[in-house]
Amino acid sequence: MPAEGKMKEVTSVVNAVKDAKIQCPLVGSWTNFVTINLVANTQLAVGGRAAMCFLPDEAKPLAFVSKSTYINVGTLQPVALQALTEAAKAAVELGKPWVLDPVAAGLGDTRTQLLNALKQYKPSVIRGNASEIIALANLWGIQTEKKGKVEGVDSTDTVDAALSSALELAKWTGGAVAISGETDIVLDINNTYRISGGSAMLKSITGAGCSLGGVIAVYAGVADPLTAALTGSVVYKYASERAAKKGMGTFSFQTAFVDNLSLLNADEVEKYAKSHINS
Amino acid sequence: MPAEGKMKEVTSVVNAVKDAKIQCPLVGSWTNFVTINLVANTQLAVGGRAAMCFLPDEAKPLAFVSKSTYINVGTLQPVALQALTEAAKAAVELGKPWVLDPVAAGLGDTRTQLLNALKQYKPSVIRGNASEIIALANLWGIQTEKKGKVEGVDSTDTVDAALSSALELAKWTGGAVAISGETDIVLDINNTYRISGGSAMLKSITGAGCSLGGVIAVYAGVADPLTAALTGSVVYKYASERAAKKGMGTFSFQTAFVDNLSLLNADEVEKYAKSHINS
Amino acid sequence: MPAEGKMKEVTSVVNAVKDAKIQCPLVGSWTNFVTINLVANTQLAVGGRAAMCFLPDEAKPLAFVSKSTYINVGTLQPVALQALTEAAKAAVELGKPWVLDPVAAGLGDTRTQLLNALKQYKPSVIRGNASEIIALANLWGIQTEKKGKVEGVDSTDTVDAALSSALELAKWTGGAVAISGETDIVLDINNTYRISGGSAMLKSITGAGCSLGGVIAVYAGVADPLTAALTGSVVYKYASERAAKKGMGTFSFQTAFVDNLSLLNADEVEKYAKSHINS
Repeated sequence: MPAEGKMKEVTSVVNAVKDAKIQCPLVGSWTNFVTINLVANTQLAVGGRAAMCFLPDEAKPLAFVSKSTYINVGTLQPVALQALTEAAKAAVELGKPWVLDPVAAGLGDTRTQLLNALKQYKPSVIRGNASEIIALANLWGIQTEKKGKVEGVDSTDTVDAALSSALELAKWTGGAVAISGETDIVLDINNTYRISGGSAMLKSITGAGCSLGGVIAVYAGVADPLTAALTGSVVYKYASERAAKKGMGTFSFQTAFVDNLSLLNADEVEKYAKSHINS
Repeated sequence: MPAEGKMKEVTSVVNAVKDAKIQCPLVGSWTNFVTINLVANTQLAVGGRAAMCFLPDEAKPLAFVSKSTYINVGTLQPVALQALTEAAKAAVELGKPWVLDPVAAGLGDTRTQLLNALKQYKPSVIRGNASEIIALANLWGIQTEKKGKVEGVDSTDTVDAALSSALELAKWTGGAVAISGETDIVLDINNTYRISGGSAMLKSITGAGCSLGGVIAVYAGVADPLTAALTGSVVYKYASERAAKKGMGTFSFQTAFVDNLSLLNADEVEKYAKSHINS
Repeated sequence: MPAEGKMKEVTSVVNAVKDAKIQCPLVGSWTNFVTINLVANTQLAVGGRAAMCFLPDEAKPLAFVSKSTYINVGTLQPVALQALTEAAKAAVELGKPWVLDPVAAGLGDTRTQLLNALKQYKPSVIRGNASEIIALANLWGIQTEKKGKVEGVDSTDTVDAALSSALELAKWTGGAVAISGETDIVLDINNTYRISGGSAMLKSITGAGCSLGGVIAVYAGVADPLTAALTGSVVYKYASERAAKKGMGTFSFQTAFVDNLSLLNADEVEKYAKSHINS
């Protein structure tokens, strides 16, 4: 049972789940080719609408029609450097939230250059695994204590090892940071939550992290950044836990996972949030 | 029961369904990254063969080996402006049918420039949602009465609101136009059909529209443009209706939908077509 | 029952299956947009880790953190010519194995130019359908007897028609070549195996070939090239045969197929390998 002080957060999460289904916010996404389909389908599953672009000239019009923006730096093409920077700029200029997923931060010069260019636009939410969060903090020069080891898209660090980096990032952006792991950490400069539960099978399919970023962007279209990150984390833990069954294959799990996202029941999410959000 | 006059269309649809499975036409597709896998899998499911390209130098050789071409203007890369124009040109020069899906028509300068460049190649079939059909007619300057409101990839207009735009487009191309919605409209300059039925769950997954365009291109490889558009619409209504079950999650629906496309039974499609094609 | 002489190969295959699950080798992939998600998910399913890139500046750092590299020449973008060549070069310079999938070899000038540029880097494994293997041998000028007919991504030749081409390719590279078909052929300059079994339903979904290439790259991260190709072929025959059921739809088959890959049992693979690897 959470402390009384957590009831406010539980209520916010439940409201975000409901509001996404009622308001169906359009999210403009700039994301990688590996998991783009899963990102769109999970965004639709939780009630959002999805539109994906890659060109600089689409940055302004897409941000204009969207409630929020999702920027994921996986599988970059040459045009991404300009396009994703302008997408972030457009969101900020319109006063709309945007979510950054620093996939494989540290790998390749273009990605490094892009992440550096994005720094000034201070994302409303940053979501990554522990290694990516540490690498981004180092890359942005706002965390000098430790160096994360980036190896492709997988984390080689624990979420707790990334805690101080996440806090520094939150100080810089003024927004929320979500570290995905066995237990997720979601924080801003004033609050730190740990979300337990979920299924390890999420790691057996590609795109669990990317699609969580995309879903957080849906919730950022109907709630404040911290609530959006918290809601995304809670519904991923909840839906993956319900989906996983002993001896299940990975694609059956993927199907059951998205099914559960699309069938979210507010009462059950409330119960789950109460027992899985910890400070 | 349809009027006697509709029996000809029902027979054409059933023949197209059978012929696609016998002839397995190769479709060369130029399509977006979000739903490219679903497009290929639905094309295979109905009997076609799928090949996707992105480069200008592949336009001619791909059109040469293909029975028809599918051009979808979602998620453009810089090279798309040249590549997709040459793909349309190659199809026309070889006297082969091509299907245009004007995804998000009106969003971004590159897409507008591309759609304008495609105008002269008069697609055999245009398939879009109501807002896209209206936007394309406006963009091509052949419909001045009303202005569609484009918001990402989703329609904010009803199919009937797009009827006059669709007719103007058909007058320009001499081909068929399909407007996807709760009830689909398929027309050419002489005939207008309404196809009822289907499941609203198609809107809960990404790519229902894109993959319908791709499937129409398969049928355009074995039938005339109007029959191809009509057949695509009928089998989508049929397969989605059979797939949908109460309380079903969205990914289970997607699986069941593609399964039903791959298991199309000519007798059942005939029965369905008789009761769901209306003029 | 295989000849006694085949027990060594069966043991190697079983060890590769086990080692992939224990060592979880990271594979850096450069692959096409149609099936990139399936490639990643099948790589994860058999125990590997997946990272995909498209930019030249990522070639060296990705090869550095990877155990092996997978290069698939489908759906090229302009940057691919430089990027994929540098990816092959980086693998070779680091002494790490790489797998080439010459999708649609012969279609388009860019693809031809790229495949010619890749020749000097002598892939550890080449995997393709019969037409692609013949086309590649012709393109590399090392097989002049017969000319394959390339039609999109599908083979119009039998695996036996590609046997001499495959052998010439193996002589050039010093590595292994896998020809996918009703019966697969896997060979190097000293050995030729035929792997029977499997399900024809693999042809009813897109990406069976590409994902097999990606999975062979996983096994190349824990075994020699010939064993890696043989193991990939055996587990694809095994998992597809177990997945297929009469009257099954294509997407249910895809789910069951990946499920079976993710649930590989070493004892059952051993039994299957004994009765399905023939010389």
